[in-house]
Amino acid sequence: MSKSIKLAILGLGTVGTGVVNLINDNLDELKRRSGRDIVITEVGTRRQRDDIDPNIIQNSDLMAAAASDNVDIVIELIGGTTLAKDVIMHAIKNGKHVVTANKALLAEHGNEIFAFAEAHNVHVAYEAAVAGGIPIIKVMREALAANRIEWLAGIINGTGNFIMTEMRDKGRPFADVLTEAQELGYAEADPTFDVEGIDAAHKLALLASIAFGIPLQFDKVYCEGITGITLQDVNYAEELGYRIKHLGFAVRRESDGSGDAGIELRVHPTLIPQNALLANVNGVKNAVLVNSHPLGQTLYCGDGAGAGATASAVMADVMDLVRVLGSIDSNNESTNGHHVPHLAFIPEQLSDTPILRAEQMITGYYLRVHAHDNPGVLADITRILSDAGINIDAILQKPAHKLGQVPVIILTLPVVESQMNIAIEKIEKLDTTTDKVVRIRLDELA
Amino acid sequence: MSKSIKLAILGLGTVGTGVVNLINDNLDELKRRSGRDIVITEVGTRRQRDDIDPNIIQNSDLMAAAASDNVDIVIELIGGTTLAKDVIMHAIKNGKHVVTANKALLAEHGNEIFAFAEAHNVHVAYEAAVAGGIPIIKVMREALAANRIEWLAGIINGTGNFIMTEMRDKGRPFADVLTEAQELGYAEADPTFDVEGIDAAHKLALLASIAFGIPLQFDKVYCEGITGITLQDVNYAEELGYRIKHLGFAVRRESDGSGDAGIELRVHPTLIPQNALLANVNGVKNAVLVNSHPLGQTLYCGDGAGAGATASAVMADVMDLVRVLGSIDSNNESTNGHHVPHLAFIPEQLSDTPILRAEQMITGYYLRVHAHDNPGVLADITRILSDAGINIDAILQKPAHKLGQVPVIILTLPVVESQMNIAIEKIEKLDTTTDKVVRIRLDELA
Repeated sequence: MSKSIKLAILGLGTVGTGVVNLINDNLDELKRRSGRDIVITEVGTRRQRDDIDPNIIQNSDLMAAAASDNVDIVIELIGGTTLAKDVIMHAIKNGKHVVTANKALLAEHGNEIFAFAEAHNVHVAYEAAVAGGIPIIKVMREALAANRIEWLAGIINGTGNFIMTEMRDKGRPFADVLTEAQELGYAEADPTFDVEGIDAAHKLALLASIAFGIPLQFDKVYCEGITGITLQDVNYAEELGYRIKHLGFAVRRESDGSGDAGIELRVHPTLIPQNALLANVNGVKNAVLVNSHPLGQTLYCGDGAGAGATASAVMADVMDLVRVLGSIDSNNESTNGHHVPHLAFIPEQLSDTPILRAEQMITGYYLRVHAHDNPGVLADITRILSDAGINIDAILQKPAHKLGQVPVIILTLPVVESQMNIAIEKIEKLDTTTDKVVRIRLDELA
Repeated sequence: MSKSIKLAILGLGTVGTGVVNLINDNLDELKRRSGRDIVITEVGTRRQRDDIDPNIIQNSDLMAAAASDNVDIVIELIGGTTLAKDVIMHAIKNGKHVVTANKALLAEHGNEIFAFAEAHNVHVAYEAAVAGGIPIIKVMREALAANRIEWLAGIINGTGNFIMTEMRDKGRPFADVLTEAQELGYAEADPTFDVEGIDAAHKLALLASIAFGIPLQFDKVYCEGITGITLQDVNYAEELGYRIKHLGFAVRRESDGSGDAGIELRVHPTLIPQNALLANVNGVKNAVLVNSHPLGQTLYCGDGAGAGATASAVMADVMDLVRVLGSIDSNNESTNGHHVPHLAFIPEQLSDTPILRAEQMITGYYLRVHAHDNPGVLADITRILSDAGINIDAILQKPAHKLGQVPVIILTLPVVESQMNIAIEKIEKLDTTTDKVVRIRLDELA
């Protein structure tokens, strides 16, 4: 067997420990597939651990570990965007390949990190950064490399999906399920990143770049969380044949008269058809649906978090560095330019296609209007929508639930958001309506 | 841009034309992702075509095209196991990389072809051979490279899935739907390969090899078709919360007291839980569910056939040869041994784990017994099952549908087939039962 591959694992939390366990459990599989021995030579950890093989150096100086002569690949599992960034840049400068699961860091600083890696002829692999164990980065960068990707829609935050699933299955309100998710360890004490969609937006920024060949633009992702979703809307959606999921969308829009050309990057609750596979991905599972030409729709589903799933993705990257990218041992000069680019497209081919503003985005809508129980109100509302060029797909008028007030549910065909804003403003001003109009986006995934 | 990549496309049927169209449609995407120009220099076709770019050489001598100096990669889309094999071996001998969609050829002659390719330092890529556009070969060879694969279950024949879907959705009998599938072009005039499971068995042989690191052993795949599935059983299955799908299974069995160690390779109709995602993959779609350690279950779903989906997989292989395997231009000596092995594991690490015989296989069962409407009969049947060590999971006794005869449906927990054979023989010999016992395998996919 040839020279062994030497790993530094920086950070020994849940995921780091998962990587150590994977290597212990599956060393035989790793060797049989790579023809190489895989050895952890250093771990970066603040406090000395006595459950670690004594042959492994425990280094509390992460910068030193990242530059160690005794290391081929640096696995960054510290998290955060400060020390983690310093460590990765230091590893790159010292000619180490890097594997990271750090979505926030890459979404916010990936352009800089990848350019630095390219300049130093090393690779920064990040399969674990999006959708955990689902190999969506590899699939989009390599397996779909001959396709023109039109759009993708993903359940890319397990916590959010758990909450939406429980609300629907058990009829429990949002706050209640969130508390349980925190108790189960699915949600952080501060759940903002998950329930406001920021975590999903980080991942969406990465997916969109490799889908369309554009620089990372996390700051341009439109982001709506799930904190405003009520059981009432969950149930009306079901009644109409839809299910509400918290999805990230990246959509390529051509200028075809109905809207502006560019790319939509958006994270928001969405009604999707009940019988779509994506609507049946439940609990903490993640899934990404990709629509590309000429392949059509493909779906990838699995665990989006957890020690085992994340370790699987981290070590797939290590195996790629060993086997696929041929980066270890080989003269980097010869493969440079003929490997898989960090963002799927070669750097000089990244495009400056604009990211659309929210008002330019095109989606269907679920509207819940509260109206006085008055024979003319439906006519008023439908006339406003019709005047704004908005086509109605379905209407559901429920019996009055407050004295003299009826909820009217309207599903619309896709419309530019600016048009919908105008229509909603008019509806809210009607004498016959009360309260704000509740709106949730809708996509047929067709 | 560096040197262009020159392709020969041998066979211009549906898939070959799909590949030509893909390159025309997506050339910009291919260039942006690879940094290379991709050019079709030759096509192999029996008759001259006037819809082909005049710069492309049309060669009716496929052997000559496969060895042309003007070609880097030979794409074999002829089909069959005779001329296609000669052409591939000739291309390999002449130092060409090969891309093929030919599952029958690889399942039956892959061991020889891959060894020949390794000896000649070229790669034979075959993503399109299994599950069409779903990148299951790449996923299992690369993305799951750090996992120990425990089992996989796949809907890997679109025709069979279309038939099972229509039978259930529309309540139409098998023969009826088969005729429609033939009219729609989903099934061949001779549908044997599809409905008897032979096509699925070819694909399963390939999947099992890359899952477990074993040589291709198509001849050892146990194979049951769907011709015997009746609407009656489809409906009873639904009533019990299950759905019948035609699945290929590859399962690793350890010797744990309940059965023999080895690998189960089997294709058969199977009851799976209605709410499993796999049960909701409908029509001609394909899907593969992989259970691996430590990742857990992941599902991959999409179009398993058709020009666009197959062309997508063929060209993903071309992109891999260009980008990932670094095989073009680079000195092959330097990457040899550090690329992705044909069967996922390096050749000298393939294992001789035995393939189990049908009687050694362990599955749950759906049994339909026809019995006289007699108070003792259920006691007789359950006693026989209990004596054979078979645990009953559910029983459904339907009202008599023929004079004095009742169908009794029994679901069992997993049991070694040899035990089930003995029990069924005894049940059929009872004075209180009539007809043969209908048995369909059952899997909880847990």
